Amino acid sequence: MKHRIIRKIARADAEIIQTLGQQGVATVHEAQGRAGLMRPYMRPIYGSAKLAASAVTVSCQPGDNLMIHAAIEVCQPGDVLVVVPTSESFDGMFGELLATSCRAHAVAGLVIDAGVRDVADLTAMNFPVWSRAISAQGTVKASPGSVNVEVVCAGALVRPGDCIVGDQDGVVVVKRARAAEVARLGAARIERERKNRERLRAGELGVDFYGLRAKLVELGVEYVDEESEM
Amino acid sequence: MKHRIIRKIARADAEIIQTLGQQGVATVHEAQGRAGLMRPYMRPIYGSAKLAASAVTVSCQPGDNLMIHAAIEVCQPGDVLVVVPTSESFDGMFGELLATSCRAHAVAGLVIDAGVRDVADLTAMNFPVWSRAISAQGTVKASPGSVNVEVVCAGALVRPGDCIVGDQDGVVVVKRARAAEVARLGAARIERERKNRERLRAGELGVDFYGLRAKLVELGVEYVDEESEM
Amino acid sequence: MKHRIIRKIARADAEIIQTLGQQGVATVHEAQGRAGLMRPYMRPIYGSAKLAASAVTVSCQPGDNLMIHAAIEVCQPGDVLVVVPTSESFDGMFGELLATSCRAHAVAGLVIDAGVRDVADLTAMNFPVWSRAISAQGTVKASPGSVNVEVVCAGALVRPGDCIVGDQDGVVVVKRARAAEVARLGAARIERERKNRERLRAGELGVDFYGLRAKLVELGVEYVDEESEM
Amino acid sequence: MKHRIIRKIARADAEIIQTLGQQGVATVHEAQGRAGLMRPYMRPIYGSAKLAASAVTVSCQPGDNLMIHAAIEVCQPGDVLVVVPTSESFDGMFGELLATSCRAHAVAGLVIDAGVRDVADLTAMNFPVWSRAISAQGTVKASPGSVNVEVVCAGALVRPGDCIVGDQDGVVVVKRARAAEVARLGAARIERERKNRERLRAGELGVDFYGLRAKLVELGVEYVDEESEM
Amino acid sequence: MKHRIIRKIARADAEIIQTLGQQGVATVHEAQGRAGLMRPYMRPIYGSAKLAASAVTVSCQPGDNLMIHAAIEVCQPGDVLVVVPTSESFDGMFGELLATSCRAHAVAGLVIDAGVRDVADLTAMNFPVWSRAISAQGTVKASPGSVNVEVVCAGALVRPGDCIVGDQDGVVVVKRARAAEVARLGAARIERERKNRERLRAGELGVDFYGLRAKLVELGVEYVDEESEM
Amino acid sequence: MKHRIIRKIARADAEIIQTLGQQGVATVHEAQGRAGLMRPYMRPIYGSAKLAASAVTVSCQPGDNLMIHAAIEVCQPGDVLVVVPTSESFDGMFGELLATSCRAHAVAGLVIDAGVRDVADLTAMNFPVWSRAISAQGTVKASPGSVNVEVVCAGALVRPGDCIVGDQDGVVVVKRARAAEVARLGAARIERERKNRERLRAGELGVDFYGLRAKLVELGVEYVDEESEM
Repeated sequence: MKHRIIRKIARADAEIIQTLGQQGVATVHEAQGRAGLMRPYMRPIYGSAKLAASAVTVSCQPGDNLMIHAAIEVCQPGDVLVVVPTSESFDGMFGELLATSCRAHAVAGLVIDAGVRDVADLTAMNFPVWSRAISAQGTVKASPGSVNVEVVCAGALVRPGDCIVGDQDGVVVVKRARAAEVARLGAARIERERKNRERLRAGELGVDFYGLRAKLVELGVEYVDEESEM
Repeated sequence: MKHRIIRKIARADAEIIQTLGQQGVATVHEAQGRAGLMRPYMRPIYGSAKLAASAVTVSCQPGDNLMIHAAIEVCQPGDVLVVVPTSESFDGMFGELLATSCRAHAVAGLVIDAGVRDVADLTAMNFPVWSRAISAQGTVKASPGSVNVEVVCAGALVRPGDCIVGDQDGVVVVKRARAAEVARLGAARIERERKNRERLRAGELGVDFYGLRAKLVELGVEYVDEESEM
Repeated sequence: MKHRIIRKIARADAEIIQTLGQQGVATVHEAQGRAGLMRPYMRPIYGSAKLAASAVTVSCQPGDNLMIHAAIEVCQPGDVLVVVPTSESFDGMFGELLATSCRAHAVAGLVIDAGVRDVADLTAMNFPVWSRAISAQGTVKASPGSVNVEVVCAGALVRPGDCIVGDQDGVVVVKRARAAEVARLGAARIERERKNRERLRAGELGVDFYGLRAKLVELGVEYVDEESEM
Repeated sequence: MKHRIIRKIARADAEIIQTLGQQGVATVHEAQGRAGLMRPYMRPIYGSAKLAASAVTVSCQPGDNLMIHAAIEVCQPGDVLVVVPTSESFDGMFGELLATSCRAHAVAGLVIDAGVRDVADLTAMNFPVWSRAISAQGTVKASPGSVNVEVVCAGALVRPGDCIVGDQDGVVVVKRARAAEVARLGAARIERERKNRERLRAGELGVDFYGLRAKLVELGVEYVDEESEM
Repeated sequence: MKHRIIRKIARADAEIIQTLGQQGVATVHEAQGRAGLMRPYMRPIYGSAKLAASAVTVSCQPGDNLMIHAAIEVCQPGDVLVVVPTSESFDGMFGELLATSCRAHAVAGLVIDAGVRDVADLTAMNFPVWSRAISAQGTVKASPGSVNVEVVCAGALVRPGDCIVGDQDGVVVVKRARAAEVARLGAARIERERKNRERLRAGELGVDFYGLRAKLVELGVEYVDEESEM
Repeated sequence: MKHRIIRKIARADAEIIQTLGQQGVATVHEAQGRAGLMRPYMRPIYGSAKLAASAVTVSCQPGDNLMIHAAIEVCQPGDVLVVVPTSESFDGMFGELLATSCRAHAVAGLVIDAGVRDVADLTAMNFPVWSRAISAQGTVKASPGSVNVEVVCAGALVRPGDCIVGDQDGVVVVKRARAAEVARLGAARIERERKNRERLRAGELGVDFYGLRAKLVELGVEYVDEESEM
């Protein structure tokens, strides 16, 4: 497989991406049928990190950040870098200098299946990052990789141009072609949840209005007043 | 084993539970003979989370939150849900809607040996949760489980009605029948530590007033001025 | 091997230690040739924790904090305790009372390859700690160990008197004899990075001014306008 | 909580224990309602290890095997030691000398939520052990613990006298009082599976004779001949 | 996303699949540019397990093996089941009865990103399985999933009909469309390695005939006779 | 820090190394005061692997095996390679070709804090390897490293020329200068254990002849005939 840097990728509609970002990770994940979630080890480096953007993907050698530099050039304003080493690594492949470069090119944030460093600076810059580790471990620039090829990041398939939504709950990927549909389903879900919230807040039980009592009976769950013995 | 929902459980005295909460996890754990601590992977979702309450236990299929809905009905104000899947899971079995329902029924918090989601909302609601993961992964409502049976949560045995104390140090379980005794021992410990703290603050060495010098000698530990060679 | 407490150790120059602290973990790690970093599981207990100090090392039985008490006596103001159990442990070997004692003797902080407790108190005291776990698990004072012997802490070799630098990115060790050299190299790196930062902020690409385009060609990475097929 | 050595415990009927052992871990686990299984990190040290016995439980300080020595005295021929440190440990708390002592007293095997060593010797002795680690790490004999108290081993509650069944699939615990019932349910399950096996071997599909086709329809799963597009 | 069972999938040429199997995991992984490897936690349940086959993929709820039953019907002789729960699970979703059914339909083996049980029986049957865990944990048949959709298994993307090669080194995926090319490249690699092996066996140094001496010089690595000081 | 290949190192006496190998990992670890053990994640790739040799150490970039090639040249017959990447890696840095080269130069085996591949071939060659993973993941030859510098391998400090002992229990390091002393202490321990074994085999209890009864009393452990209540 040749190493390639793909310059042009299709992206979803900016307004739809923004909508997905407002809906948040949990809603988007549910709206698309409980799919596309990255593993929970992907954590934001600061609590208020929030992001919705088109993925520019980077496949690189572990411990080598050469291809991140190459990727910034092909980003458009508002994109997010999705960086994946070809095998497990926790090295700090990205820090404040790369974030400064990203900022200069209006790259919106980073999702990296490895480590990140200078997190105090990144937090001060309000540059959102989701990573599997915080590590100062330095990296080299010695081996080839690819930009804008399909990658598996923290257990989720990401194709260039897919929508990435990140918040305190983690990161979810929406296939570009499904973005509009998912945003619509997400909006419907939010409306449905709004109504449920009102009823739950008023003291109704989920077991009632979700119709779960019949389910419990069907499954053979018995109500008992007190534990007689053990 | 039949799946059951036990409606009525005995609880410890409310004042004693409150006392245990003021003493905190480390003191309570020590007071009861260094027992009852959950594994350190159980972390609060926000730093100031603090809780002391009677456990309503939930045993459920991994990836299935049906029984949490069923459990809320049998909670009394001030109880805490202790949720344990029957095998390891990191799914986000609990979120903001369930927390809203808990709030409506004055359920005080959640300890869950799985994942939780909507953590930004839960933090805004000041709803305390200790979990092993933050994950947006959605769940089904398809399989039976039990409420108020004995469970093993993060390595600790929890029986319905046991006292659960949680803070930034983790979570500890106090057997209901021992709650008063533990609270008393905890109070004594706090008083003892208060005195020790004064002496330590004044510069006395632990090695002196804990009588450890003799111990070091007995164990054959030698004092040497300088490392001669290696 | 006899268990020993070495009373006197050599330390690096205080001003140099301070300089290393200002440079921070990532810079110091790079300056000394990407060496000396502890594993990324060593995390500060609060975000603003920052430290540079001479190591007083403690080797102890897992679940036993006897030797920490012994170590405080041989500390000089500004030292940091580096505590390592002889096998893997997550127990809460250090808490607020020990921190009070450390404070009384001007011990600057703690790096521990195990657990720590009373983290709310330690945070309130602004006592910086890097640990692999937060755990209330209590410990005994029953088995011998050593103070100021070489230890391996979180994958890094630490000799008594080595410089320990900790911040939000983790912990790095600088050999005492190399401290001045590393501080000088770190200063040069900071100056170099300052210039790079300006150019990156102005929009120059790292791929250009680091001369990476030639590298990419040499490595056979191809630029393609669009993905033709998959 | 006082440290105690309980000398006399009740045991299940020997013949029933033997039956559970013949049924094996998976069958017994299913027969008792998918309960009682230890975490899968508990692995046999050699492939053919197989065991069914009454538990003599040991609760001990991590890195300290004093209480194992004390426990052997209260074992009866055919018992199995279930050893649990009070916090996570991987130390090699048990080796060939202790196995020789166990053999002399007809102790049948070991289940230990920690490490074990001399595994080549133990294998040659055909002494079955399930552990979470193989480690030569030596231990001390310095701290108290208890024998024949309830313990949580690898996520499963074990009371003294409970039946322990171990094989290549792991370890399962059967409450003493339920042993006869579980053995009966296990026998029924084996008979049922024998019939299913014949039909499956003859080429019938599980989806047919378990009646799953209706289930798939009810759950909305659609059969499609070919993937039209992605 | 609707849950679907796709009945017909394209497969690679049988002879090519067989060739890939003879080349083995390491060679195939290298031949396709160091891609497609599953995470090393995927281990064979017995040492001599070896397999090359077309993937029939299964996406299912964690702890639920309903869709495995559904998948067997759409397998053709020689296929391998690739089973992936929608979130992390270690449950024993597959055992001897399902293997008997697989055998009856000439399904060649199993790759499962979860647990497996009855491993003694599966070994006796010589039914090859790669899994992330051995666990007797039983599962339900309650929730929908899909058959023959793209899945991410142990970090590797698998599309229905892709070639799966498994041996003692792990599991690698080859895209169906690239199978012939990879087999050709693999054969060339084997021939090249055969020559290298002869030279290495004769005592030539890799550092010589791979031309690495120049590389070492270029990278600034210095040869020193003896360590003068540290 | 310059990257260096140190050509000449001091080694322990061959006969003493052989003696340590016969004593085995557990005995040697105990004999030197329970020190020098590598983490238990270092496992032999086949059960009968056994080794005692002088360490030639390799420090390399993760995912890069260039320095292993360089190291073979400086090995003497009977040496063992101890390979450590500068940050955590599971890549298969060593396989059958490198083993063939090692064999040609009489290198005795490998201890690697990363992955290894071609394990079926290595087993057939009877080439002993201890590693943290089995992985086919290929590596590059692009970055510098060092040979015969001090390294930390799986938590243990290894200096060039130190004695490495490996068997089924793991790997232990003996400082070169202490090898003779440790071998003597090991022999004494074996003799002592031989006597203990005879007494234990005859049915004497460890609690008696180790004098632990007094210890139990001193520690406050109480003997109770039966559990009265819980």
